Amino acid sequence: MRKIHVIGIGAGDPEQLTLQAVRALRSTDVFFILDKGEVKADLTRLRRDMLDTHLPQGTYRVVEARDPERDRAADGAAYSPAVGDWRSARADIYERLIAEDLGEEETGAFLVWGDPSLYDSTLGILEEVLGRGAVAFEYDVVPGISSVSALVARHRTGLNRIARPVQITTGRRLAEGFPEGVDDVVVMLDAQQTFRQYAQEDADIYWGAYIGTPDEILVSGPIAEAAPRIERLRAEARERKGWIMDTYLLRRHPRD
Amino acid sequence: MRKIHVIGIGAGDPEQLTLQAVRALRSTDVFFILDKGEVKADLTRLRRDMLDTHLPQGTYRVVEARDPERDRAADGAAYSPAVGDWRSARADIYERLIAEDLGEEETGAFLVWGDPSLYDSTLGILEEVLGRGAVAFEYDVVPGISSVSALVARHRTGLNRIARPVQITTGRRLAEGFPEGVDDVVVMLDAQQTFRQYAQEDADIYWGAYIGTPDEILVSGPIAEAAPRIERLRAEARERKGWIMDTYLLRRHPRD
Ligand SMILES: C[S@@+](CC[C@H](N)C(=O)[O-])C[C@H]1O[C@@H](n2cnc3c(N)ncnc32)[C@H](O)[C@@H]1O
Ligand SMILES: C[S@@+](CC[C@H](N)C(=O)[O-])C[C@H]1O[C@@H](n2cnc3c(N)ncnc32)[C@H](O)[C@@H]1O
Repeated sequence: MRKIHVIGIGAGDPEQLTLQAVRALRSTDVFFILDKGEVKADLTRLRRDMLDTHLPQGTYRVVEARDPERDRAADGAAYSPAVGDWRSARADIYERLIAEDLGEEETGAFLVWGDPSLYDSTLGILEEVLGRGAVAFEYDVVPGISSVSALVARHRTGLNRIARPVQITTGRRLAEGFPEGVDDVVVMLDAQQTFRQYAQEDADIYWGAYIGTPDEILVSGPIAEAAPRIERLRAEARERKGWIMDTYLLRRHPRD
Repeated sequence: MRKIHVIGIGAGDPEQLTLQAVRALRSTDVFFILDKGEVKADLTRLRRDMLDTHLPQGTYRVVEARDPERDRAADGAAYSPAVGDWRSARADIYERLIAEDLGEEETGAFLVWGDPSLYDSTLGILEEVLGRGAVAFEYDVVPGISSVSALVARHRTGLNRIARPVQITTGRRLAEGFPEGVDDVVVMLDAQQTFRQYAQEDADIYWGAYIGTPDEILVSGPIAEAAPRIERLRAEARERKGWIMDTYLLRRHPRD
């Protein structure tokens, strides 16, 4: 029976691999690396460097494939269906990779950015591939340090305040309004700097870009003061590197 | 200047230490281990085993102290104030430990269960100690795999569904009602099995106890079917071990 590890590799700092992840890397014959275009070339390199660091050369194979582009135009109204089509196009690719490049008795691995549980489609795609029934395999999941954990560690703050909840959401959701029932909100996948919408709130922001990498940028403070600074730093960094990954925590002050 | 590492050690599986955490352990002179009474003796042992595994004997000191008991009677209405008093009692202890047991040029460490960012008071206490001004130190935070990440990895599912938010909350909060605006809710610190309140919902539960340890128990499925099973297994395990740590994800089906 084929085996597959879905391995969370942390969100940028190669030292954020767990011992369990290193062990899983070492038991892998074939690594599948899906490249999402040139902006992600840096991330592919980081994965390759990890393999070089932890595995003796010649003990494993790497198969790179091109990830289908998501239909960005459909991202607005019809987000979920577009993601659905994209997922099934990816399932085609994963199915082919597993069937053609992984031997019946071999172990393959997908190296997932951060933690596989947060805004990542690998598990959903593998379930879809299994559901189709054309190729059989067992799989397990190795948790990783998410960009969320890395963000708050760098800012030396908690996700939740004492006995209170925290929500993790997307920029798109935040644009629809501040989530109800919570004052601590982590925002991912925000290409629009939606925090600007809340610059008049009595709130703090803890923001980070390229967290855990040599390019890391951190800004925190009252949102009214921090927002313009983040905007400027973000634009500069994005210009310089060609892409950006950022995450932030919004913390509203209690109203009482 | 004294240095302190706040190190997330994962939520039960010693292999969930990160390479960064191991490096931080190795640069530590004095480990502070706060024992919360006999039910937590197992957790203290796990920390000691980690040190034995990763550090040469005789290269570090361990200082154990007794954590003040939280006023459980006040847990109901006045949760936050009781936690506040408790925190300041703990700050007294931390301050004394740092002042008396950590040399001016030494590095100390607190080993935090899971990820220091989730329902853990270590960072708040250190800030309180610094604010008092009696003892000075620098500190950094090493993120860890939380019980939340470990839970969903073991269940091979995501925290969020595609493009949707997820909330992390407490049993006490869940007892007040299902959080608004989210259908995916992770519940921690729930001594009351509050999920039973939602047994009639069209929802799935992904539950885990002692995750990552040899005693791990996992149950998942439609909540109406899973709830009685969890109740039984939980009572048995609690009886057998004398204490339990459990976490769960509630996932409501979309209403459309
Ligand atoms: C597709 S999601 C994947 C998240 C990933 N599974 C995790 O656990 O962090 C990508 C989003 O994660 C966040 N992100 C990932 N790595 C990051 C980093 N090093 N610095 C800042 N944000 C990051 C950004 O919000 C980005 O839009
Ligand atoms: C005080 S909080 C600390 C959480 C910790 N900082 C983390 O990241 O997991 C304790 C709660 O975490 C959860 N928890 C911690 N370790 C766990 C484990 N191994 N299995 C199940 N739940 C766990 C339980 O909900 C427990 O009530």
